[in-house]
Amino acid sequence: MNKRVVIALGGNALGKDIDEQKVAVAKTAQVIVDLAQQGLEIVITHGNGPQVGMIQDAMDNVVVRYKIYKQVPLPSSIAMSQGYIGIDLQNAIKYELRRRNMDTKVSTILSQVEVDKNDPAFQHPTKPIGRFMTKEEAEINEAHGIPCMEDAGRGYRIVVASPMPKRIRELETIKTLLAAGHIVIACGGGGMPVIEENGKLSGVNAVVDKDNVSCLLAQNLDADRLVILTAVEHAALNYRKENQVWLSDISVEEAKKYVAEGHFAPGSMLPKVEASIRFAESKPGRRSLITLLDKASDGLAGKTGTVITL
Amino acid sequence: MNKRVVIALGGNALGKDIDEQKVAVAKTAQVIVDLAQQGLEIVITHGNGPQVGMIQDAMDNVVVRYKIYKQVPLPSSIAMSQGYIGIDLQNAIKYELRRRNMDTKVSTILSQVEVDKNDPAFQHPTKPIGRFMTKEEAEINEAHGIPCMEDAGRGYRIVVASPMPKRIRELETIKTLLAAGHIVIACGGGGMPVIEENGKLSGVNAVVDKDNVSCLLAQNLDADRLVILTAVEHAALNYRKENQVWLSDISVEEAKKYVAEGHFAPGSMLPKVEASIRFAESKPGRRSLITLLDKASDGLAGKTGTVITL
Repeated sequence: MNKRVVIALGGNALGKDIDEQKVAVAKTAQVIVDLAQQGLEIVITHGNGPQVGMIQDAMDNVVVRYKIYKQVPLPSSIAMSQGYIGIDLQNAIKYELRRRNMDTKVSTILSQVEVDKNDPAFQHPTKPIGRFMTKEEAEINEAHGIPCMEDAGRGYRIVVASPMPKRIRELETIKTLLAAGHIVIACGGGGMPVIEENGKLSGVNAVVDKDNVSCLLAQNLDADRLVILTAVEHAALNYRKENQVWLSDISVEEAKKYVAEGHFAPGSMLPKVEASIRFAESKPGRRSLITLLDKASDGLAGKTGTVITL
Repeated sequence: MNKRVVIALGGNALGKDIDEQKVAVAKTAQVIVDLAQQGLEIVITHGNGPQVGMIQDAMDNVVVRYKIYKQVPLPSSIAMSQGYIGIDLQNAIKYELRRRNMDTKVSTILSQVEVDKNDPAFQHPTKPIGRFMTKEEAEINEAHGIPCMEDAGRGYRIVVASPMPKRIRELETIKTLLAAGHIVIACGGGGMPVIEENGKLSGVNAVVDKDNVSCLLAQNLDADRLVILTAVEHAALNYRKENQVWLSDISVEEAKKYVAEGHFAPGSMLPKVEASIRFAESKPGRRSLITLLDKASDGLAGKTGTVITL
């Protein structure tokens, strides 16, 4: 049996605008096809921060300027970002496959992720989205009941909740295509967050963390590896301090200890390590890898990256 | 064997904005699930005129206001519209299925349609897109090499080419999901138009007619029926004139004669009749139906609509 991997792509795998995206996905495609060539079964998830920000911003401005369109809800913007990113990524992978005379199929699945409407995250929005605003703009938003926060000294942004994913609605579609030999792109931007009430799905104003949804997807697909690709080759203790230590192979137990000691930055390395822990401890034999995009192959071969095992 | 149908939804099946869309797709879903309940295998295509217009307009305005994002190409906006429309349609169908205790799966496939870069349509753009402009705005666009035209007395709009679809790139994905029992939503907005050069797909600034792509899809899937749902129950001779005659069952030969006599309006009923003719004449036993959304079931039962057969 071939090994099955879920690969979570970070922002650097995609670029920030339409031109950067074309360049970035071409490089990303080489990494993905290297893995496909090794016979791995591959499902790809990706972030959508700058892209969904652009889309929401564009839609909001049309609302303001023309007063003709209804406000476009965040889940609809996430759906749009899945289309906008997915197809470029799919085409880049398909092109790279063809260059290597491989006829593997590639599909992009519009994906929704069910969350719990009682998730405590809804009481404490923490995920900044969209463009940067002045303090005055943020105050106007706050006055209209839209929470904002100062984001790392770069200005103010709207914040939304980041609830935990409970169920990937398109799981069977992903499984069917995977079984048919496709490389599948799914759960882009963490998936559109939805709640189900009386059989009806409704979008909610939230963003599901893409590493969390990748972990759930990897478990649901009984994957062997969860691979989180990001801007550093390893997670680190005392990151960017004098006594920094890069982490290579660590156990779930060690990883949990480092989390408790506060070594990983919230909204950055922390969700990656936490998702990696959850996947690794979900079943013996499952391993999580955090590394650079370029190092995915080496990481899976055990040569680099931070590997977390039970 | 169950009968296989490709259903092309017109604008009235979707509404024009986000609120109208939720209401319209709920009604559309009832029609689709009626057909699913009869045991039909269903692939759905849909238009995206108002939606892609809104998206392009929104993206263009962000370009103008902030000068920070690159112009978003039309195929990317079509991809976004496939996400924005597809997921609402999918959820509405899923909800209606559940109401009737059916567990049929529903998937939305981001779809690209290959066109010929030498298609003569590129020399004569005919398809109006996006918002209405003043004559002055149109002249500014024209001066920048962007063709515009006056659209039915409602103002000026940008026009793009509408080339013929040659190949549906995601055909195998659609087939795989159909074989697994899914209702599949594909080729939204006619699909993203792409050309292939040296194995590389590139988007082109064009719109593929959704009825044309539906006809190609129906042929490729060896469907039994092509169903084009629109705002009238029948095609007509002398439409809206005193001597108007509604058409019920007609042969391909008769239909061709009526086309030659100029009975059908370009950009409206003409492409529907032409696509219907092409499907009906592509293989004995294939039938095309043009009717109202509400009448799809009656039309397939031979009770109403314009049916075209060889």
